[in-house]
Formats: sequence, C-alpha cells, structure tokens
Amino acid sequence: MKETKPFAGVLSPVLTPFKKDLNLDAERFVAHCRWLLEQGATGLAVFGTTSEANSLSVDERMDLLEALIADGIDPKLLMPGTGCCALTDSVRLTTHAMHNGCGGVLMLPPFYYKGVSDDGIFANIAEVIERVGDERLRIYLYHFPQMAVLGYSLDLIERLLETYPSVVVGVKDSSGDWSNTEAMLKRFPGFDVFPGSEVFLLPGLRGGGAGCITATANVNAAMVRNLYDRWQTPQADALQEEITALRKTIQAYPMIPALKQIIAHYRNDPAWTAVRPPLVRLSEAQARSLIADLEQKKFALAA
Amino acid sequence: MKETKPFAGVLSPVLTPFKKDLNLDAERFVAHCRWLLEQGATGLAVFGTTSEANSLSVDERMDLLEALIADGIDPKLLMPGTGCCALTDSVRLTTHAMHNGCGGVLMLPPFYYKGVSDDGIFANIAEVIERVGDERLRIYLYHFPQMAVLGYSLDLIERLLETYPSVVVGVKDSSGDWSNTEAMLKRFPGFDVFPGSEVFLLPGLRGGGAGCITATANVNAAMVRNLYDRWQTPQADALQEEITALRKTIQAYPMIPALKQIIAHYRNDPAWTAVRPPLVRLSEAQARSLIADLEQKKFALAA
Repeated sequence: MKETKPFAGVLSPVLTPFKKDLNLDAERFVAHCRWLLEQGATGLAVFGTTSEANSLSVDERMDLLEALIADGIDPKLLMPGTGCCALTDSVRLTTHAMHNGCGGVLMLPPFYYKGVSDDGIFANIAEVIERVGDERLRIYLYHFPQMAVLGYSLDLIERLLETYPSVVVGVKDSSGDWSNTEAMLKRFPGFDVFPGSEVFLLPGLRGGGAGCITATANVNAAMVRNLYDRWQTPQADALQEEITALRKTIQAYPMIPALKQIIAHYRNDPAWTAVRPPLVRLSEAQARSLIADLEQKKFALAA
Repeated sequence: MKETKPFAGVLSPVLTPFKKDLNLDAERFVAHCRWLLEQGATGLAVFGTTSEANSLSVDERMDLLEALIADGIDPKLLMPGTGCCALTDSVRLTTHAMHNGCGGVLMLPPFYYKGVSDDGIFANIAEVIERVGDERLRIYLYHFPQMAVLGYSLDLIERLLETYPSVVVGVKDSSGDWSNTEAMLKRFPGFDVFPGSEVFLLPGLRGGGAGCITATANVNAAMVRNLYDRWQTPQADALQEEITALRKTIQAYPMIPALKQIIAHYRNDPAWTAVRPPLVRLSEAQARSLIADLEQKKFALAA
C-alpha cells in the first residue's frame, strides 16, 4: 500500500443505529464498528448511504465520529462520507475529518440540482479541496447515480485526477454496472477503484481494483475478507459465488432495513431495526421471510 | 384569505446573492427582498430551489432569515423552505421559522433516498410536525419531482391532509405538468394549490388555485402580480400570454444563473452573477444572447 493510498481491502459502510426516539445510539454504533473490525473489515466507511448519513445533520455526524475516536478506534481506519448538497457542509465535515486524523473521506457530488454540468461538479469538489487546504486530504469519489442521480463521469474523474493527483486517490463505484467499473480500472491505473458491492470483488481485484466497499459487510465482513485474502487461490471463484449468493438473498429486500433486521435477529437486539424516515423498517412478514431465506446460508452474524 | 391559509397571490422564491468568496451577501439579499415586495410580490418563498437553498448550510439559512426580519420585513410574508434530507435539519429549520413568526414553510420531501414509499415520506413529514409541535405551523408541500425525484403523490397529499388538516394547507406544484396541478385542484377543494410557474397562473386561478410561486418573479413580479389582480378582467388572457412569453425566453437558459445574470445586467451590478457550485454562471456568450433575447420584452427589471 502506497502512503498516499490509505485504504485497501474490505470496507464496511457502517449502519447507524437509532434509539426509540430516533436519536443516535452512539453506544451500539461504537460496538458495531468494533465488531466489524474484529470480523476483518480493513476500514469503516462511516456515513455512507447505508449509514443513513443523509438523514443525519452535520453535527450528528461529527458527534458520532468523535465518539468512535474517543473510544479508541484508529482514525486512520475511518473514511467518513463528507459530500453534501451544500458546499459549506462538505467543507465543514471534510475539515472535521482531517482534524480528527481520518484516513480519507468518501465524497458524494452535491446531489440536489439535477442536470448540472461536469464543470459544476468539478468546481464544487475543487472548492472543497481548496477551502479545506490540508495536504493530508485523501478523497474517494462516491459514484452512486441510482441514488444521487448525479455521478462522476470518466472525463470528470480524469480532470480531477489531473488537477489534484495527490488528493483524489480513489472511487467507490456503486453504479452496479461492471462495465463502468472496468472502464475506470482500465483508464486510471494506480487509481484505487472499489466496487460498491462484493459481487464485483473478485473481478475487481483481477482487474487491479483495491477491494470493495459494501453494505453487506455489516453482516458478512468475515467471508468477504476471506475472499479478499484468498483471491489468488484456487478457492477464489467458489468463495465469490458464496458471498454473491448471500448478497442476492439480502438485496431482494430493501437493503438498509434488511441489514438492520438481520443484526436485530442474530444479536437478539430488536432496537437495531429502527430507521429514520423516509426509510421504513421491514414489515413482520418481510422480516420472517428474510430470516427464512437466510437460514440455509453461512455468514458471519449467523455463525 | 382564511386565517389558516396565510398566503395567496404571487410569491417569489428569492435568489440568494453571494460575495466573491461565495459567502452569503445578506445586504444584497435584504435589498432584493424589499424590492420584490415593492414590485408586488405578496410573499417571499426564501430558500427554495431558485434560492440555491440546498447549497446553503442550515446555519446559513437561519442567519439570512434573521437578517431579513432584523431589517423589518414582516415575517408573516415569509415562507422559508425547510424540508431537508435529514429529519433533524428539517425539524431545526421549521422550528426556527416558527419561532421567528414566519407565515408558513415550504417543505421538500427528504430527497436523498430514491424509491422510498409514500409511507416513508408520510412518516418523515409527520415526525417533523410532531417534533416541531407548534399549532401555528402551516406547511406548503413542495412538489418538484424533476429536481427532488421524490414527490408528493395525490394519495400521499390526501393522507397528510386528513391527518393534519390545520397544518398541511397547500402545495407548490413545480412538476410543470398542468394535468397534475388540475388533479390537485379538483381533488382537494380548499387546499391552496400554487403552480410553480406563472405559465399556469391564469388556468390555476380559474380552477380555484391560490396564485403562483415562481422563480421568474425575481425579475418580473410586477407583471405577474398585475395578472393576479386582473385575472377576472377581459385583459387576462393577453397578460398571461405576455408573461408566458417572458418565462419561455428565460427558461431557454439555465434558470438560476439566467435570473442572476438579468439582475446583474439591469441593475448594473455584476456581483449578482455569482452562484455556488455545482451551479455555474452563464458564459459571456450565453449572457449576451439572453439579454439580446430580452431586449424586445417588457418586464419589471427592464422598465
């Protein structure tokens, strides 16, 4: 791992637990982060889509980050999401992450205005970089067009890489489109491409990728990490098939409530099912069906 | 106007001016708000899409609102946008608007997560209403699916109206789809439907609408107000044609930068062209072409 590229392997975009009143549950959050690292996650992409980060205020995100670090989790393992609609929010969160020694940040484009140009997204990211003004800053672009609608085109990535080669060091490609991930891998050698799903972990690694950043790691970090460690062994394809099958089982349900339901079930901790609206928890029927679907499968939480 | 329905007529979603360093320009903002009211705007929908509100932090929005009120603008004339991705931000802004005596608030649905259900949006709005817990609260739903992707379906509006009849009192329909506006007017008598464009002002009023909330009012409030005042006169259709033609001229360009360019030109105040990224100001060629297109037309700023 080069010094400028602080992450590789299996990162989990950490689920955010809430109390009954929908306020943050910092205690369960810290405990879950510790468990993920014990299971083999090589880093924690806190405050991503899976984290319901956009349902949290800027202050809430900063409080949770500080709670993690106060508990002794190494900030170098943290890649908080800091890309917001508002330039000033992105600057504030990114500055805060740097002041707290985070290994890097995961940056959504400013996602409210649709139909904006690559010039506009470039100007936004450039302004964040200039305002933060910290040479330690390492940005991973967060490409998730199904959710943010706006995304990072290949031409935009090239322009950012050319302008800020030591800052813009990687991408999480959550497009779910392997041809896009492959195009990134081919066009930008040395750029750290993380597919946003473990379904593409093995093809990604074979194409020069850096690992994966995947929601499912919240319940299955150990098996995903196992494939990452053995991707050059004869077992690799069989391991990939196994984790892909689990992913497909889970994503037949709304992903975030489903992951929270799985944790609630296997930890026998119903508090974990809470989500902030506009998300809704699984219905009882969905929850029963999900657990029944999973009962035949091996994975970390069920172990 | 019934006491529970604090707005009618022509509301302007106010453009937000920035300084060279992209910080807020409160002085120009206050002056522009005063001018809009002098021109005949019956209310100010500050912090809407046109205001680049989603490019401002929560604190920035609160500071600007307080600057307006400190300057003596009647808070009853203000309908600040307070709907955010984060539940806690929506609650904070809505509470702040109520504490400052605003006539109502304009509420985007929480717009990051796509594919969420009406149940989830309902739960979000309900949670905001319950947490704010202020019987003076009047909410105008902000339906703008082209930008927020999420919107308020007719069934969702009905559910909100039935549950919170004294709170959910109107809608800004920025869908640009007259059949949707018409369906709202027919299905919810007594509910204040504001088309999001003056193009639908006359048909809206004829169908029982409350007026319009339109970006173009930033440069043309007087003529739009003139139609509102005379909509039952024989001149109404001709007045509608005139303001529609101006709207179409402007919306051939990116709307927000174009409106700022028009103000900069006719006030001879180039500072007004500043936008926050991801928006970009018009190119010099676009700016020249826009002003040339406008030179034949009558409207408030050109007067």
